[in-house]
This record gives sequence, structure tokens and C-alpha cells, in this order.
Amino acid sequence: MKKYIGCDLGGTNLRAGVVDPTDGKILADRSTPALAREGHEAVMERMAALMEQVITDSGLPKSEFGGIGIGVPGLLDLKNGLTLFLPNLSGHWKKVPLRDTIANKVGLPTFLLNDVRSITYGEWKFGGGRGVDSMACYAIGTGIGGGIVVGGKLHMGVDGTAGELGHQTIDFNGPKCGCGSNGCVEAYASGPAIAAAGLKVVTQGATTKIGELAGYDLNKIDAALIAKAANMGDAIAKEIYERAGEALGIAISNTLVTIDAHKIVIGGGVAQAGDLLLEPIRRTIKKRVFIMPLEEVEVALAELGGNAGIIGAAAFAASQVEGE
Amino acid sequence: MKKYIGCDLGGTNLRAGVVDPTDGKILADRSTPALAREGHEAVMERMAALMEQVITDSGLPKSEFGGIGIGVPGLLDLKNGLTLFLPNLSGHWKKVPLRDTIANKVGLPTFLLNDVRSITYGEWKFGGGRGVDSMACYAIGTGIGGGIVVGGKLHMGVDGTAGELGHQTIDFNGPKCGCGSNGCVEAYASGPAIAAAGLKVVTQGATTKIGELAGYDLNKIDAALIAKAANMGDAIAKEIYERAGEALGIAISNTLVTIDAHKIVIGGGVAQAGDLLLEPIRRTIKKRVFIMPLEEVEVALAELGGNAGIIGAAAFAASQVEGE
Repeated sequence: MKKYIGCDLGGTNLRAGVVDPTDGKILADRSTPALAREGHEAVMERMAALMEQVITDSGLPKSEFGGIGIGVPGLLDLKNGLTLFLPNLSGHWKKVPLRDTIANKVGLPTFLLNDVRSITYGEWKFGGGRGVDSMACYAIGTGIGGGIVVGGKLHMGVDGTAGELGHQTIDFNGPKCGCGSNGCVEAYASGPAIAAAGLKVVTQGATTKIGELAGYDLNKIDAALIAKAANMGDAIAKEIYERAGEALGIAISNTLVTIDAHKIVIGGGVAQAGDLLLEPIRRTIKKRVFIMPLEEVEVALAELGGNAGIIGAAAFAASQVEGE
Repeated sequence: MKKYIGCDLGGTNLRAGVVDPTDGKILADRSTPALAREGHEAVMERMAALMEQVITDSGLPKSEFGGIGIGVPGLLDLKNGLTLFLPNLSGHWKKVPLRDTIANKVGLPTFLLNDVRSITYGEWKFGGGRGVDSMACYAIGTGIGGGIVVGGKLHMGVDGTAGELGHQTIDFNGPKCGCGSNGCVEAYASGPAIAAAGLKVVTQGATTKIGELAGYDLNKIDAALIAKAANMGDAIAKEIYERAGEALGIAISNTLVTIDAHKIVIGGGVAQAGDLLLEPIRRTIKKRVFIMPLEEVEVALAELGGNAGIIGAAAFAASQVEGE
């Protein structure tokens, strides 16, 4: 099978890699920083150049390449290959013909995909979700994104917007969410939500290692630092992860009663907390899901880390060109 | 195409019909009451006899029939064609070989399906959901059941348990649900939940037509009576449906962010309240779903009424025998 290029268009980094879609191996990759302030024309120019570079890096002729997949952080018009709204990029990329521009510049068939759906696809094909015909991926970082695989296919929904699992309401009286609704699981268990819980206990003067580890600099309190405190045995830090895991467990229970996924893959930076998060998730599911055979459901960590996006975007492009 | 038999195995009624799977028309049907206290052997005997009767009623020779679909109220082992647990039937039908027993007695290929998934399939093929490639069905009665269609297919999940939409948590601090969890939408918007809200306002002495319409006999207060009061302009009765519709709207918002259905079909007895329920559902979705194109989503009433189950079961059997 031909090789494919996977590209991750992020708010702070642009990354492209050459991927073998038969095993998900990355044969070459490069990234460049700081795109948020550049206009879309300049960014697309740099994307194309980066792709040409990784093609050169791989040592393979362009004829050995089957196509390009781009993971995009925002709303898309898939039919016309346009970006509609990318909240973290300069000018928000309204109706930018990203697909055709890159296809023309690089000379390869190009496919767009939401960035978290790229991660989902990568984890399903080669990571924590491989081998199952239904799964849900929760990517927990600044926000909570997701994606679902149903009946052996990545489910796209209207313009690839299916799988926004972070915006399930778990408490209709709950706190405001960035999306405009309230009580979304993202408002309980995203990185900033976990950090805010840590900030709160420190400013309230609770006895916790969180403040100590941060040297009492409140700006240093983040989800990773709280996980560190929890792993040192700090009861309050553990409790913060317990609450976040419960919130995630409730959202995952809703996913399970809806699509009955065999596997739930937890990724993103916050997932580095590992069992601090997975244990309360598993306990919560057992307390909430009674009408399906839970023994066939596994909750696992993502396995591809920061590579999931480019691997998934490339493998998705391969599936579009060559069939599943 | 051959004709198919659809059968609805209920706690109080057993019904069978001859269905033309090309248009969903029922060519003959019969029902018999009061099965809850009979053992499974006796019920299966009656099922087979009822099917033979509708075949005779149809005037068609058995060679014109392609198969049988049975909608079953409970958990199934689809691979082995067993019922696992039917909570409303005598003895709970643990590991009863329903599929093969009926297939042998009637002499036609037989397929089992959860009863609400049958309704979903019927509404998708011939009712409120026809023509879309993704939908969710909420069947609101004594409980809230559901089913989902994704990528142009009824999504079964593990042993057909996907689509239990009534057991999505919408408030993790919410009231106890019959399933064992708490805060499920079923605890807010099922027929009994709506009736309980009516009962509460009457016993609290509120000024409402609900008590009057019931002749102050609390046993007569049900969802239909409260809908009647609301349609007469009773503000408290309207408010009860407003709350139920909001709860449903939250659950439906969760379904939308997960699978991005193009159509939401609302059926079951409680759906007879029509706009009393649909209006707050639509308003709630607009307040909660921001990350997908809502203009492509329609919330509509089911169209097949009490026939959805047998039409759906028959059409499902046809899809299994003849392909989609």
C-alpha cells in the first residue's frame, strides 16, 4: 500500500508526518511552532512546504504517496472541503478552501477531518481501541473532545461533528461551559476544570501538597501538578481526580447506553493521570449502567500519545482512497 | 418480495401481523391478551398458533412468507436466539430458546430484536424517521426506551442493547431510577414520572384542573389526563409537561452531540401530548447544542403508533433474510 501524509493543524503547532497506513508507523515527521497569529494563506503555504519536506525526509518518490489527511481544530464543510470556524486560529478560517488548496499545492488527494476524530481514528486503528468494532474516544485536555466508532466505522455525522462527547450534560443545573450550555462534562473534568478545583482548595487554605508543589504560585497549579500531589498520597488531590473521574464516568455511562461501545479509550494530556482517573471512571460505570453486559466493555488509556492525530489523519485518508 | 410476520411479545398482549416489507403495510393481524402469568412454553405455543392464524387470515400460502421477526421486552442473547431476562413476563424467561422454538413450530426463519429497537426500525423504515441515514427514537411510556440508526443501519451494539436512551444521566444528583442508577431521564419524563408530578401538585392543594378532571380520585391522574388539563389552559399542567420536555431535550441534546442524528422521533403513549412535549424539547436543544448544525436536525412525532413494533420486527426480519 502507498504511504500517506498525516497533518495536525493546531493552534500552537503545525505538524506533518509520513505514515505507513498498514501498521501506523511514522516514517518521517516535522513540526513548526506558533501559527495562531498568522493568516490562513501563510499557514497553508507553510503546511504545503512542511509536507514536501517530510516527503523528502522519507526518501520516497511522490508517486509512492496516496494522499493527505488533515486533522483540523474546528467546524468543517466536508463536502466542499472548507474550514468553517477554527476558534483558536487567526481570523477563524471562515470558508477557507483548505482541502483543495493543499491538494493543488502538494499534488495529492486531500481529506479533512476534525482533529479529535483523527485521534479517534488513529487510536482505533493502531492504538488503545484496535480490534473492536465499536468504541468511543475521550480526549481530555484544555477541552474534552471525542469521537465514536460504530459498526466498524468512524461515525462522522453531519459534517463530521458527531462524537462531541465533552458536551454531554451530566447535571442540568451544573456550571457554565465554554460551549454556551451548562453542566457539560467538560466543565467538570477538563484540564482547566481540574486545575480550578486545585486552585480553589489552595486559596481556601486547605492542607494539601498542591500549594507546596506549586511553590504557592497559583499559575503553576495545573492538572499534572495535582496528579503529582495525588500520587504522593495527598488526599485532597486524590479527591479532585475522584470527582473528575466520576463526572467522566457519568458521561461515559451515557455513551454506553447509547452506542454500547466495547471499548472506551481515554486520551489527551489529562489521561496521563492514569489510574487516578480510570479507577473512578470504572467504579461510576458499574454504579450507573445496568441494562447492557458491562463485562464486554473495557476502559483503557490511549496508546499513541501525541502521534494519534497524524497517524489517524493519514490512515483516514488511506481509508478514503483505498477503502476500509 | 415475500411477506414477513412481525410479532410483539408484550407483558399484557401478544400480537402478530403479516407485513409487506416493501411498504410496511399490515395485511392481517391478531392479538391475544393476558400473558404475564403464563409460563414461556404456553406463551410460545400461543405465539406459533397466532402466527399460523394470521398466515391463514392473509390468504397467502406459507411459501409466500420469508420469515418472522419478534420484538421482545428485555435482554437477549442474539447469537444463540435466547431470551435472557424479560422482567415483565412470568418466570422472566431465563435462557429460553425463543428463536429456534418458533422457527421450528412455524417453519420459517426467525429473528429476535428488543421491542423498542423494533419500534425504532419500523419508524425509520416507514414512519417518522423515513429517508434519513441517522436517527434516534425515544419511546416514552411506562419507561423510556429507544433505539438509534447510524450510518443507514439500526445500531445493535452488544446483543442489541444499544439505544437505551431513557437511562442517560441528566443530573447525577437526580432521583432514583428503576434501573438502579439515579438522575436518568426516565425518572423525569416517563408516563409515571409525569403522573407523579401531577399527583404531587394535587396533594399539595395547588389550583389546577388536574384534580378536577380526575374527580379527585388520585388513581386517575396519569400523563394523558395531565395533557388534557394542559390543553384546557391549566398553567400547572403545562408546567409539568414543560419540565418533562426540558428533561427529554437534555437527553436528546446528549444524543445529538454523540451521534449527530438528523432526526429525533418521539413515540410511545406520552408522545400523544404532541406539542406540549415537542416545544420544550426543541427549545432545550437550541439552548444546549452549539457545536453541530442544528438546522439539519428535526424533532418529530412517531407516525406508526401501536403498529410500529410489528411493522419494525417484520421489516427487520426481511432485512436479515434479503439484505438491506
